[in-house]
Amino acid sequence: MSYDPSNIFARILRGEIPCHKVFEDEHTLSFMDIMPQAEGHTLVVPKAPGRDIFEIPTEALAAAIRTTQRVAVAVKEAFEAPGIMIAQLNGAPAGQTVFHLHFHIVPRYHGKDMRLAAGQMADPAVLAEHAARIRAKLG
Amino acid sequence: MSYDPSNIFARILRGEIPCHKVFEDEHTLSFMDIMPQAEGHTLVVPKAPGRDIFEIPTEALAAAIRTTQRVAVAVKEAFEAPGIMIAQLNGAPAGQTVFHLHFHIVPRYHGKDMRLAAGQMADPAVLAEHAARIRAKLG
Repeated sequence: MSYDPSNIFARILRGEIPCHKVFEDEHTLSFMDIMPQAEGHTLVVPKAPGRDIFEIPTEALAAAIRTTQRVAVAVKEAFEAPGIMIAQLNGAPAGQTVFHLHFHIVPRYHGKDMRLAAGQMADPAVLAEHAARIRAKLG
Repeated sequence: MSYDPSNIFARILRGEIPCHKVFEDEHTLSFMDIMPQAEGHTLVVPKAPGRDIFEIPTEALAAAIRTTQRVAVAVKEAFEAPGIMIAQLNGAPAGQTVFHLHFHIVPRYHGKDMRLAAGQMADPAVLAEHAARIRAKLG
């Protein structure tokens, strides 16, 4: 399968649809997941196109994990999360729903199962507040 | 908390205990998880010490994701896995059990929940065969 440039993250990267942005640099963008698994569920995408870990250029992947580290520190502080799960899903059987590679940063509080099923749509005002809280920790 | 050099992955890295190795380079080591969540569940660790994503030097993390990409391609081929979950757990509340940073590479077949709870100990002979299958794909 080939990369579909009309996927929702490609559209966010092109500025065609909005996101609750927390960080951006030359190679990556980070924003709130609109169907969060937990408060503070944040995504990191490389700007380079690529459906998954099998397609993405290695240096775009490395840039994405560097940003993931930086944002994970901020998410942990912003939500006082004792645990942070990083997940990157490849293929629908693994739970991937948007076919532009992305890392999930998910606060974990209770040692529960690492479920990463579809959540429910979050209140945009809540997401905006969460994004601001993370941006504050990023300085 | 500080890094404990007696953790099991540090001991594997020092060669004090064996593993079913699939790949090694200057900065990383990859081997079979002995309590697999699915057939082909493989781990990648940086050689640099660090409990988690908050402690590990950024370039060691980048090296680990590069190896994870390389090994994930081989795992997908070796197990004909339609999906691959990459997970990296930080803190006991997130399900981390060994406190040396590691990436999980987990084949996914059925779109089931992304559970990453403790599995059961696998037959070493089976793991040895799985490691050989992945090494063959790494060429």
